[in-house]
Parts: sequence; structure tokens; C-alpha cells
Amino acid sequence: MGSLPLDAASLRPLDPVAFAGDSGAVLDFLAEYYRDVDKYPVRAADLEPGRLRKLLPEAAPEHGEPMEDVLEDVRRDILPGLTHWQSPSFFAYFPMNASAAGFAGEMLSAGLNVVPFVWAASPAAAELESVVVDWMGTLLGLPQRLLFSGGGGGVLQGSTCEAVVCTLAAARDRALHRLGHDSIIKLVVYASDQTHVTFQKGARLVGIPPSNFRVIQTTPASGYGLTADAVRAAVDSDVARGLVPLYLCATVGTTGLGAVDHVRELGEEARRHGMWLHVDAAYAGSAAICPEFQGYLDGAELADSVSMNPHKWFLTNADCCCLWVASPGALTSALSTDPEYLKNVGTGGKKPAAIDYKDWQISLSRRFRAIKLWVVLRRYGAVGLRAHVRRHVAAAKWLERTVAADERFEVVVPRKFSLVCFRLRAGFVGDDRVDELNRELLAAVNASGRAFMTHFVVDGKFVIRLAVGGAMTEMRHVMDVWDLLQANADQVLRRYQL
Amino acid sequence: MGSLPLDAASLRPLDPVAFAGDSGAVLDFLAEYYRDVDKYPVRAADLEPGRLRKLLPEAAPEHGEPMEDVLEDVRRDILPGLTHWQSPSFFAYFPMNASAAGFAGEMLSAGLNVVPFVWAASPAAAELESVVVDWMGTLLGLPQRLLFSGGGGGVLQGSTCEAVVCTLAAARDRALHRLGHDSIIKLVVYASDQTHVTFQKGARLVGIPPSNFRVIQTTPASGYGLTADAVRAAVDSDVARGLVPLYLCATVGTTGLGAVDHVRELGEEARRHGMWLHVDAAYAGSAAICPEFQGYLDGAELADSVSMNPHKWFLTNADCCCLWVASPGALTSALSTDPEYLKNVGTGGKKPAAIDYKDWQISLSRRFRAIKLWVVLRRYGAVGLRAHVRRHVAAAKWLERTVAADERFEVVVPRKFSLVCFRLRAGFVGDDRVDELNRELLAAVNASGRAFMTHFVVDGKFVIRLAVGGAMTEMRHVMDVWDLLQANADQVLRRYQL
Repeated sequence: MGSLPLDAASLRPLDPVAFAGDSGAVLDFLAEYYRDVDKYPVRAADLEPGRLRKLLPEAAPEHGEPMEDVLEDVRRDILPGLTHWQSPSFFAYFPMNASAAGFAGEMLSAGLNVVPFVWAASPAAAELESVVVDWMGTLLGLPQRLLFSGGGGGVLQGSTCEAVVCTLAAARDRALHRLGHDSIIKLVVYASDQTHVTFQKGARLVGIPPSNFRVIQTTPASGYGLTADAVRAAVDSDVARGLVPLYLCATVGTTGLGAVDHVRELGEEARRHGMWLHVDAAYAGSAAICPEFQGYLDGAELADSVSMNPHKWFLTNADCCCLWVASPGALTSALSTDPEYLKNVGTGGKKPAAIDYKDWQISLSRRFRAIKLWVVLRRYGAVGLRAHVRRHVAAAKWLERTVAADERFEVVVPRKFSLVCFRLRAGFVGDDRVDELNRELLAAVNASGRAFMTHFVVDGKFVIRLAVGGAMTEMRHVMDVWDLLQANADQVLRRYQL
Repeated sequence: MGSLPLDAASLRPLDPVAFAGDSGAVLDFLAEYYRDVDKYPVRAADLEPGRLRKLLPEAAPEHGEPMEDVLEDVRRDILPGLTHWQSPSFFAYFPMNASAAGFAGEMLSAGLNVVPFVWAASPAAAELESVVVDWMGTLLGLPQRLLFSGGGGGVLQGSTCEAVVCTLAAARDRALHRLGHDSIIKLVVYASDQTHVTFQKGARLVGIPPSNFRVIQTTPASGYGLTADAVRAAVDSDVARGLVPLYLCATVGTTGLGAVDHVRELGEEARRHGMWLHVDAAYAGSAAICPEFQGYLDGAELADSVSMNPHKWFLTNADCCCLWVASPGALTSALSTDPEYLKNVGTGGKKPAAIDYKDWQISLSRRFRAIKLWVVLRRYGAVGLRAHVRRHVAAAKWLERTVAADERFEVVVPRKFSLVCFRLRAGFVGDDRVDELNRELLAAVNASGRAFMTHFVVDGKFVIRLAVGGAMTEMRHVMDVWDLLQANADQVLRRYQL
């Protein structure tokens, strides 16, 4: 059907035959893409800003074009400018898993295209969401009080940032309800120097004065995890100045180094001051489906909220973030709206079990994400998903050991999950040039197109981050990237030693 | 492939054959769904809260299951609990268009699964976004200063609420930069009693005191549009009290009635007080691709920002909201973050034209929405999309005329786009019972399963809203719903006249 000219006047946008034609063409395109993705340079080959704009027309076409032409342009103009997140040799940032099941779930979500914002707008979609977040919470070993079955509850949002904004707003409004809105300038939030920047962005969004963000330093002694002692010192000093401790963000698996904050200890500290404790397990939460990693969430029963992203390392195509809260009422008090045009009229009045998810998130409208996560869980099962996580952890473990055994390299922090942080040691060049050396190594590896990884800076040291976790990444890809690192290290070191 | 047992240990989540099998099964499922969607009750047939939870297991399965079983469960357990937003007889809220092209675009987005949050993370995705928002802005006749080509620029977000939060934060931080953060409690925002509740939710989220939201009354005299005179009176009174006017939200096509605020007049008023003017054209923005509707956006050159949702009436599956701003710097000042792990290292330094879209929105991570909107524009062309809009406007015009010609009914406000607001007149029953009568009519129509519409209340009157705009909705469906309304009106009136 793609090649038939479209008659605008009789445009039938969901004609089943046209639908099957266009979608079938894309399916073939994607199957071919997955077959060949390891042949593309992992990081976009063409990094010239403005390149694509020059290739495309100035304006949208007047007349519709065949799907084949559109796909041909994707192949020719767009693919060379993409960084291939699904490449098995993508080790940058954190993974963003696609999978056959995640994609099938996304197709169902986009195809049914329902909007479960109020309960009556699609009851089964809202209920599937409440079931699937309970399933996920149980898999992660979360305490009952964060699940619907225990009086708490969960929601699927688009990102950790949204989850952080919503919980910050809940904590803020709970405090301001008591103190009055003028006190917004007294509210203080706490996190570590390893906490994701999304937290500061969120705090700023909800109106916390930037001067009231406490960034507490971590040290190698705690593996760059935030400790209660450090929090207590900061809180005591703020309280003495008449400020109000509001919110503490603990991270399980930080973005820079994969560090873990001590949840129980921080939870006790937060309780002492009536602070909201949020646990951000965006990346490492996926590992907690394996019993051997659940210990990192010990103390979660002291948390007001926990979040993790199935779209990272859990085979759920973007986007999908699980947020669980102990007190749904605190969340919905801050986020609810009840205009006339959304009242569930005609349903015989809203029943108590009916959830209006618009009151659990920033936006009113929302996608049917629950069906995506549900298809992933159904299709792969807990056993399959644990195998997925363990395969990457095993590969990362191998890499860590191998890096440590090479005298040119050092592992910067002990690996906990599937992120390995390492660098070329000082000693080969002067201390002052070792960062430069590592920057060059990383740039050379990325420029090769055969792998893509990113960096971090801790204690002033430039560190290479290698995050294993791609949907297609197997042991052999990690072995290949090690060969690549060694070869490039040889070359870079040779240049420096001349 | 769906029926093959999955071996967890060798799980290959993007194996091209498994991918084709799972996705193909979903494609068949959806093609069948579109063929049959008009046979389902439009509003969920089963409105018993808790029904689905009872049908599903308590926990995620241990072992993976075949795709066929999953789809069978969707058919049996989930479809009966959905409200069918793609039904041609869905006239509730506003439409949420799916289309073959929108779906194909969503498949590309979900399948490639790249994350264009910083430029290097997928340059072509960021650039396609900047091109496609310029294309859209041009189609809508927006002023150059809101386009990249004119020094402004646009971004694709998930919803109007996100767009409103981001622009409120930009306006707030611009003001607080001058006044100091303590002045947050002096900032005042303005909108009408017809403005979407998302605006109040957004203002509350960014920390504006709820007592500083001005809800300005509209009247039938202005067609329920907000007038500059009314705004001026409110602003003058606030300024006299030492408050700071911050942000004015104008709407083109309100949710309740499809009313239009006078953008130029409000823009001039906003400028007088240094307020940020946002134009929310979430629904009616789509109509502005037709020259005959562009007049409603006259004065947009006075706006600081404009937003509209292609996911409503523009054949772009959820989610997709275009936000244009005149000053990208104001937006990114409020929303930017620059942690070490996101620095575009290895690209030879960031070029000036490279956009980090994370600084244009709430979240850091984001989906490749641009390819979806681009496929829609390519596949249908401006001519096809105008035909789509005009078909619905013509049907709504017919309905409005037909309702007005029936002496039992009255049109409550003149239709501007494709939303018709009407009700059974008082006169058949006492004035005190006319709302009840209309409630019963709406409930009866919705309970029939043959159409779904929602209501609004204006000047204390209960009004039935009928929004034409579904991707499959044709003239005959609007004629059918009129038959249905008449038949139910007969019955309801007979009951009342007994």
C-alpha cells in the first residue's frame, strides 16, 4: 500500500490495509536494522551540526509520499546521524533496552492509543497499571507498604526526573500545608555529590531556592555512597539556622560510578527530621529482581518513595519509569485536579478502587505504558529477566577482573552491578597528564566506531565508564571491547612515551 | 516464533526472527482491532473497579509465555475494559488520533530506541526535531520569531502540561533572577475560567502560591474568550498590592467549549506588564494548518511561547506536543544541567548549532518523537492533513446546524472548530430539572455503547460536548450519533413528561 498515491480527500488514516502496508514495511526495516546494527559506527559517524537540516526540504511536503520513500530517507539521511543505542557495543551512559517484547508492548500501547488519565477513560488500562507495578515491586523485593496490596501504590511515568518532581511536590506541599506557602524559601533538600543532576533540576522546578540544595560530599571510604553521619551534620546546621529539612534523595547505583547509598541508615536519619526519603534505583533497580542484589534495597520500608526505570536495563523500550509511594494521598494531594469536564459522569459515580492516574503524575494525558511492561514480564518471565541481568553482571565482572590484571590500567571503584569504571594508571606519564591520556584513549575508542562509552570525573580524576547492559550485548562483545581498549591504549601510550 | 518456548539462559531479546514473530502477531492483532473497533461498546463496557485485578495472577510469571497467550489475554481480559478512543463514534474529551503513519513513526521511534537528550547521543534525532518543529510552525502560520529559522525554536514534549511547566519555570526564573528567590510568593499568574486545569496544576508545581492564581471570569458576550480589559483590571489590582504579574495563559480552542481568547489583545496587555504570554492551542492548533483558521492565532508574534498537540487531531499517535518559544535562552536558563557525565566529550567540543534537548524540557531522557511527526507530515502531506481537519469541521458544522434546527435542542455556544456544545432546552421540563434531563440523556447515550461523549458546565448549565475528530470518524458516524441522540432524547423526555 505504501506505493499507492494517497488521495487526500479520501484519506482513511486507519484503513486496515494501509495500516498493514505501512507497518509491515517498518517491521522489515527494523528487522534488517537489528540484523545489521553492529555494522554501524556505534556513535554517530557524522557529527557535523546542521548536516541533516541541509539535506531536508525547507517545509513539509504539500502532498503525501509513499512509505518506501520515507524509509529510504531514514536509511540514507537519518541512520548515519544516529548513535546506535541498540548496538551490542554501546557501553555509554546507561543502556536503553529495546526487545521484541518491549516493542510488541509499545505497539499495543501506540496502536490501541487509549489515554488512561481518568479511570473511566480506560478502566482496564488503569487497573493493569496498578497490577503491573505491584508485580514489579514484588519482583524487586520492595516492602508491602509501597504496593497497592499494602496500602501504598505505584504509577508508570516517563522518567526518573518526573518521579522526582512529583515526589518533591508532594513533600513540599505536605510541609507547606503545615507551615504556609511563605516558608517555601526555608525548605532544604539533600543529596550527595554522586546524585543524578536530575534531582537538582527537579528541586529547582518545584521552587526550592537553589541556595537550599545541599550537595553532600562522598568519599572513597564509603565507595562514594552517602552516609547518615554526613547528612546529619548538614541537617543539624540547617535546622540551627531556622531552615526546614524537606527531602533526602538516596541512590542505589549512581550514574557516575554505580555507587550505593546506605538506604536504611539514611531512612532512619530522614525519619528523625520528618524528611521525605526517595530511593532512586533508576539503573540498578533492575538488578534487584535477582535475590543476590536485593540487599542494596534493604531499608526501603523507611522510604516514602522508590523509583526505577524498566526502560534502562529491563528490556522495556522507552519510556517507562516505575514510581512507588507509601502514601498515595500525599502524592495526589499535590497533583490532583478535578475540573468539570473530567468528572466521571455516567459511570454511576466513581468507585473507591478506581484510580485517576492523572493525579499521580505531572501531566493529565498519558500513554498506556502498563501494557508494555506487562508484555515484557509475561513474555520473558522472572527467570528470563534474571538471566538477562546476570549475563551482563557476569560480563562486567570478567571485564573488571581483566582490567585489574593489566598493569597499565586501574579499576577506580569496585564494580557492584554491570558498570565498570577504570582508567590508564598514572606512572606511564606524569600525574598531570594522566587525565589527558585517558581522554585520548576514550576519544580514540569512540572515534573507531567499534564501541561507544562515556566518562566521569571523581576526585578530580577522569574515569572511563563502561556500562554493560545492551539487549544484544553478549560476553563476546565485552571481550571485543577489551581488545579494542588494549589496542588503543598501546597506541596512545606510545604517543605519550615518545 | 511466538509459540517457541523461551530458553531463559539464551534469551536473545532482539533476535530478528523472534522480533518479526512477536511484532507480526501484534500487527495482525491491531489490523483486526481496527477492522472491528466499531463493534465494541465505545466506552468500556465493564465499569466494575477491581475486575481486571481479580482476573490476573498475583505475581509476574516465573517463566516466559508465548506471544499468542499474551494477545489472547489482551483480547479476553483487557479489551472489554478499555474505552475505545479509536472508535469512529468516540466523541468524548478531545480526539487522540492514531493513524497508519503515526503508528509507523512510533514503531521507528520505539524500534531505533535512541535517546536524543544531548546532541552527541543522536545528532540526527535532535536535528530532525528542530526541522520538524519549524515545518509545523510554518504550517500553522506562526511568526518567524518562534522558529529556529527566526531565532526562536521548538521542542517536542509529551503533553501541554509539560510545556506549561517548562515555560512557567522559564518565566519564574527570569523574574526571580531580577527580584531574588524570596519574591516567588509575589508572582501572580493569570488565566480564564475556561483555561485548562493543567495550567493551575503547572503553576502549583513550579511553586506559585495557589492564592496567586487569578481565574478571570469570561462571559457569553465574548464567546467565553478572555478579554484584555478583564486581565487589566486583575493585573492593576495585583500591582497595587505589590504583587508581580508573571504569566498569562491564552487559549485558542478551550477544552470545555472550544472558545478562543483574543491573542493579540492579550499579548499587548502582557507586554505592558512584562508578563510571559503563552498560547495554548492544544486542540485547535491542528486546525491552523488551514488558512481559514489561522486568524485565531493572529497576534502570536506577541507570545513568548505557543503549544499544540499533534497527538490530538493531527494523526500522530500519543504522545507528541509541540512547544515553540521566542527565546530559547529563557527556557534553557531554567532547565539546563551540565554534569560531567553528560559532557559531549570526544566530539571535538560542542558546536554552536548542536542542541541538547534535555535543556528544553523537564526530563533528561526523552524519546525520538520527531521521527513520528515527520513520518505523519511526509506520508499525508499538508494537503492530506488539511483534508482530515476539514472533513471533521464540515461534519461538526452539519451537526451544529441540525441540532439548532431541532426545537428540542439548543446549541450553547457557536462552534468554531469541530466541537459542538449543545443540550436539551429548558421548556420541556422545569428550569430546575433541565440539567438532570441532560445528564440522563448523556448517560443513556454512553450506556448504549454506540457513542461516547462527555460534558461541561458553563454558567451553571450542564452542556453535552461532542468533539468530532477521530481518525476513523466520517460524516456517517456523526449522522448516526445524531440519530442516537434523537432516539434517546425521545425516551428521556417521555419519562420526564409522565
